[in-house]
Amino acid sequence: MEHLEVPQLLGLLALIMFGAKLAGTIARRLGQPVVLGELLAGVVLGGSVLGLVNPHNEVLHFLAEVGVVVLLFEIGLETDLGQLLRVGGASSVVAAVGVALPFALGYGVCVAWGLPTMAAIVAGATLTATSVGITARVLSDLGRLQAPESQVVLGAAVVDDILGLIILAVVSRLAAGAEVTPLGVAGITAIAFGFLIATLVVGRLMVPLLARQAKRLETPGVSLTLALILAFGLAWLAWAAGSAMIIGAFAAGLLLRRTALAHEIEHGARQIGFFTVPIFFVVVGASVDVSVLRDSHTLLVGGLLIAAAVVGKFVAGYAPFWFPGRKAVIGVGMIPRGEVGLIFAQMGLDSKVFDAQMFGAVMLMVIVTTLMAPPLLRLLFPPVETDQSPDPRPPDRGPERESAAT
Amino acid sequence: MEHLEVPQLLGLLALIMFGAKLAGTIARRLGQPVVLGELLAGVVLGGSVLGLVNPHNEVLHFLAEVGVVVLLFEIGLETDLGQLLRVGGASSVVAAVGVALPFALGYGVCVAWGLPTMAAIVAGATLTATSVGITARVLSDLGRLQAPESQVVLGAAVVDDILGLIILAVVSRLAAGAEVTPLGVAGITAIAFGFLIATLVVGRLMVPLLARQAKRLETPGVSLTLALILAFGLAWLAWAAGSAMIIGAFAAGLLLRRTALAHEIEHGARQIGFFTVPIFFVVVGASVDVSVLRDSHTLLVGGLLIAAAVVGKFVAGYAPFWFPGRKAVIGVGMIPRGEVGLIFAQMGLDSKVFDAQMFGAVMLMVIVTTLMAPPLLRLLFPPVETDQSPDPRPPDRGPERESAAT
Repeated sequence: MEHLEVPQLLGLLALIMFGAKLAGTIARRLGQPVVLGELLAGVVLGGSVLGLVNPHNEVLHFLAEVGVVVLLFEIGLETDLGQLLRVGGASSVVAAVGVALPFALGYGVCVAWGLPTMAAIVAGATLTATSVGITARVLSDLGRLQAPESQVVLGAAVVDDILGLIILAVVSRLAAGAEVTPLGVAGITAIAFGFLIATLVVGRLMVPLLARQAKRLETPGVSLTLALILAFGLAWLAWAAGSAMIIGAFAAGLLLRRTALAHEIEHGARQIGFFTVPIFFVVVGASVDVSVLRDSHTLLVGGLLIAAAVVGKFVAGYAPFWFPGRKAVIGVGMIPRGEVGLIFAQMGLDSKVFDAQMFGAVMLMVIVTTLMAPPLLRLLFPPVETDQSPDPRPPDRGPERESAAT
Repeated sequence: MEHLEVPQLLGLLALIMFGAKLAGTIARRLGQPVVLGELLAGVVLGGSVLGLVNPHNEVLHFLAEVGVVVLLFEIGLETDLGQLLRVGGASSVVAAVGVALPFALGYGVCVAWGLPTMAAIVAGATLTATSVGITARVLSDLGRLQAPESQVVLGAAVVDDILGLIILAVVSRLAAGAEVTPLGVAGITAIAFGFLIATLVVGRLMVPLLARQAKRLETPGVSLTLALILAFGLAWLAWAAGSAMIIGAFAAGLLLRRTALAHEIEHGARQIGFFTVPIFFVVVGASVDVSVLRDSHTLLVGGLLIAAAVVGKFVAGYAPFWFPGRKAVIGVGMIPRGEVGLIFAQMGLDSKVFDAQMFGAVMLMVIVTTLMAPPLLRLLFPPVETDQSPDPRPPDRGPERESAAT
């Protein structure tokens, strides 16, 4: 398994993509998010079961990281900072409380359990970021994307993604060995914020020029090439400046969103994402050692993390006390953790801050929070028959009649 | 330079894509094929000049090979076997002579020069395949894509690609150490042909079913995923069966061409190609040791190969003696060597059949044959003002007025 020839790696990629697609489709048929299926495909292909996918293979690891960079680039491309400011108050408060409280609770239970400080910090951090994709998908399936509650949830999910990225930048430097002192943490936070702000300010001036120049070339593929150069280049720059790669990729997405090439770039980046993002989820799944889930220690820590994750976000839903809508819907909508939580968990494992037990406990938290949110949301927020969302989708993806009866 | 972290590799990829795009654009402005610019960008980024791109880095090497697989998949997707049979006679004769004669001449001059048998075989093989892309592009720029001569050239270029792939499959097994006996060569040829035919027969039955199944899923990205699974999977299978990866990728393209997903797949695969194919050309360029071009031995062998390449294809243009059109146009249209020739050369270098000198000589041949064809074609085949080709392109890509005056 140590060294694979190029054709063997290609065969493995074919297998990974097939497994991810198959399991993702089954998950969707069962009304679950596709990402859950992809994770489980990884568990089956990984060391615990079939032993076909070695997450430490250099090429697989690199492609998985490209998947993360492309994913964050796409999230940046979809993030409307202006609209976020308009939704304003309620979302920001939900996001701030929804980051701080789960982090504090997660950190607290881990320390109380006697875990090392760094493991407790990284575990707390995995609880911070809501999975925008899963939440948006469920709300859209319910035909409720335009409801005020949904707008607050989506706004808050974007803000907590940004906060989560900043936290990730800080935590990954700590995990790499930086000292855990108030001054050290403040310094790394300043670098992460500073990088994002400096990149956005400089980029606002330069990227439109680059995009106009690229558009004038009219060669095929120029917009995707520009997008990848910026996403990869800023990912490298963020890392070199002492922050996290994904902050750079996210900034590249934000910057290109405003240009005339945005639509074409979105389409091209999605194709690169179809290739690389499932590799990331399968590699994460393959890193899970299933045997630790028989370990009562892991199950207990996982249970505590789940409780911290659910309570933290649910309470955050009630934070904007002046908001007239159903606050329980907001809280439940924030529960699923996904992509960013997985990136944290993988980083914890790679940097040896997490052992197999801790990684298993966090995976359990991601899987349970993701599984519980869709049915709870349907219960609290019955689907409407006429979906006003501009999202065009085939009829079978619309409201589900059996839950409409509840 | 030995081990690079993930962010460093991403930064390097950004640099490679930027260099390739910049040099490709300059080449295009000078009326030259984009691939030439990408190769030269590789030479500059490689060990001879800046030393930034190490072609032996495992991740870069893998991405470059993915580029080759995607390229051959795209060529398969664009290959209409039916139309090929209709153009029929003239094209087949041009292709057959245009493969056999340059191979024989190239092999002959190398053996006469005292080179080892294997190096002579691989060098002969690099002369066999015309670059479909470059030829089609020049003819389209001249507004002559629908001329009978052009149709013969394009048909022959496709046939010689297929023959070239078969030869590559055979030669790569020989280069890997299989014995050079008539029986051995016959066996490997049979495997290569057999694999292609068996795959096409079995695939004709299964791929339409798979494509219908995939279409019914209606999940985003399903067609690209299916395409990559087939391309990578068949590349692995071809290799495992004792043939060459690219035969499998080419077969995957041929099989998916007939399905309802073909258009969507073509679009998705192009995006993956925009990402990976320039990496291949840059890595090939980076493998060139510029200092060997100051070596008179390399220049002489290069000159002999160029002579064999030009004479072989030019004579092939006259092989369909019954054809009423301008035979010189056909011959000149076949001269440029490109992608497949580079794949041969890289394989020769990787398997240590070529030393740096021999690799330099072959690169010289590829560059000179590619550079000489466009101006010669313009001279022999003046551009027409009204282009009847269905290829929609902006006005500035149309006939060039200065050469219309000749």
